[in-house]
Amino acid sequence: MITDADLAAPVGRTTAAPEADEFYLPPLPRLLPVAYHPQAAQIEISSNGWIRRMLGECFSDEQALLVFLRQRNGIYGPITVPFADRRRAQNIADWYQFVTVIDSFVSDESALGADHSAAREAFAAVMADVDAPGGAAAATVYGRAAQDLWRRIAPDLSRRQVDRLVHSLEAFLRGCAAEIEAKLAGTVPDFEGCMRVRMNSFGCEFLELLTEYACQVDMSDLAVRGALDEVHHHGMRQLILVNDLLSWRKEYAQRDTMTTMRVLREHEGLGLQQAVDRLCALVAHHEHQYISARDAALAGPSGREPGLSAYLSGLDHLIGGSQEFEYLTPRYFGDGAAWDGTTYGWLSLTAPVARFRPGPSTTTR
Amino acid sequence: MITDADLAAPVGRTTAAPEADEFYLPPLPRLLPVAYHPQAAQIEISSNGWIRRMLGECFSDEQALLVFLRQRNGIYGPITVPFADRRRAQNIADWYQFVTVIDSFVSDESALGADHSAAREAFAAVMADVDAPGGAAAATVYGRAAQDLWRRIAPDLSRRQVDRLVHSLEAFLRGCAAEIEAKLAGTVPDFEGCMRVRMNSFGCEFLELLTEYACQVDMSDLAVRGALDEVHHHGMRQLILVNDLLSWRKEYAQRDTMTTMRVLREHEGLGLQQAVDRLCALVAHHEHQYISARDAALAGPSGREPGLSAYLSGLDHLIGGSQEFEYLTPRYFGDGAAWDGTTYGWLSLTAPVARFRPGPSTTTR
Repeated sequence: MITDADLAAPVGRTTAAPEADEFYLPPLPRLLPVAYHPQAAQIEISSNGWIRRMLGECFSDEQALLVFLRQRNGIYGPITVPFADRRRAQNIADWYQFVTVIDSFVSDESALGADHSAAREAFAAVMADVDAPGGAAAATVYGRAAQDLWRRIAPDLSRRQVDRLVHSLEAFLRGCAAEIEAKLAGTVPDFEGCMRVRMNSFGCEFLELLTEYACQVDMSDLAVRGALDEVHHHGMRQLILVNDLLSWRKEYAQRDTMTTMRVLREHEGLGLQQAVDRLCALVAHHEHQYISARDAALAGPSGREPGLSAYLSGLDHLIGGSQEFEYLTPRYFGDGAAWDGTTYGWLSLTAPVARFRPGPSTTTR
Repeated sequence: MITDADLAAPVGRTTAAPEADEFYLPPLPRLLPVAYHPQAAQIEISSNGWIRRMLGECFSDEQALLVFLRQRNGIYGPITVPFADRRRAQNIADWYQFVTVIDSFVSDESALGADHSAAREAFAAVMADVDAPGGAAAATVYGRAAQDLWRRIAPDLSRRQVDRLVHSLEAFLRGCAAEIEAKLAGTVPDFEGCMRVRMNSFGCEFLELLTEYACQVDMSDLAVRGALDEVHHHGMRQLILVNDLLSWRKEYAQRDTMTTMRVLREHEGLGLQQAVDRLCALVAHHEHQYISARDAALAGPSGREPGLSAYLSGLDHLIGGSQEFEYLTPRYFGDGAAWDGTTYGWLSLTAPVARFRPGPSTTTR
């Protein structure tokens, strides 16, 4: 069994061989359930309208907005909370599109990604809008969108959950700023350093919290007691590593440094296919460990806590659904891609639009 | 109340004023229900895979195939048969994508649209494949796809329904050939002449039949007795006229002649906005008349026939869902469009990608 410990001893930065242009992504285990919200299509369409109204002005022009909408980020919510009621699923879909807008501009060196200090100031202004007394007008466009989400989501959360939601947004923005800074400096972190930032910039805290919101449960107590630490550790690593695999085309094109693909290439000197294979093994490892930890939590002393079983089922769908979305989205396969359900095969690293092919397009490797 | 009779006396072909570039599409009545199949997203993705496997080679290259898949034609089925079981909904989705592939090449003067005689020969070969004894290999790519659909759909149909399905495909292909011929000759038909061709080329017979299949009922008896004639007359006119409104950008770009927009412009000398307004009035008229006819059928002597009520509910969803699809599809709003749920506003006739805008973009009219 490969564990993260195998990655703990970097052999030093090496000069990678000329980048191969294709890699083979094998079938991943996919042991967790995947379901779409029965109103997934309508929720996505409605969320697109919300983005246009609330955040349209953040985009440089209509074309840039359309590129974003074509990525279908509005269906991430409906795939990860398939059993939520329509209203909550819509609010979650809008939240995830909101943070994906920010994530997009973080990766864009002509936008938030240009300057980590300026980004930190912008993020502080957003948090000030979030913390503003009820009814106060937002000073920022992002803050206005966040206030709108808050008004819709917070009434259904406990006081502690609202505090955690504020904290999770702050952590996400902190992670985003750290990614900008690392990228501008060209710094590739080590594996655990990368994971620490990614836990924030991937929004793991609000992924967990919005799963509670979708299931109408409150895990604040259990979380404080650490009863879910093992479950979350493996679940979130599976999420992040699958994302690193499937987003690698995009991250490579954008020269992002905060991805385990870069870490494995540069710290371990692995070739492209070797790095992919290593990540696949780690995905399988964390998926199995997540399932064991989830089963152990249910069988253990906290197993009969109200809502735990629903929450763990929600996490299953978050993890399974997140992976489904990442196969589907043109965000990773290129603007203009249209998914046909294929989940493995040969992928071009640099084609503007990629799809899984049954064989390599060249015989150069 | 405006009726089609208002259109019966063309005032002769007139030279239209220079085409205005924008028109206002008002909110349409939308009195019929709209629902999406709970597995709409998965059915669309799976249908995209079927198109790639069965018909991919019909497209000139990967780019042309992707343009087609981006039109989201695979979601027409799930929106028009929201309550069908998954298997039937998938078969219907594939059928509608299949005929839409043909329809696309009919409008393409570098493909089937180049020559109506050659198209008629190609269609005869497809029908020969459909009529071939079970197990015989298809001679054409379209025939192979049709055989696949037949194998999946026919076992659930009565003998009379299978005959009607064969007949409906023949009628559709006959309508397609007539459209090619009229377009190549530059002939704009009169209103009723246009409707006669469109009833075929829009596939009205299989729209009705696949609605029966979705609802698991057999209306062959009632259809023969003419008990549904009034219902179908108004229902299919609503379908076609809404299509003419929402597809006008595409038909205009492709210089298609077999659309009531061209008929109204050229036979009645209406301006662009006048023609749109006239069609909107006709849509409302036929929608109201459809509802009256459907209610009368339920209250009349055939009202207690088994399956009638389910079938009429199915027709409601066919009509309401077809309109929903036509707002959604980049086929009509331009490759790259992403729907945000808006259903009325100002539309550019010629912009590569259009959306409903709250006001006209220019003050030139």
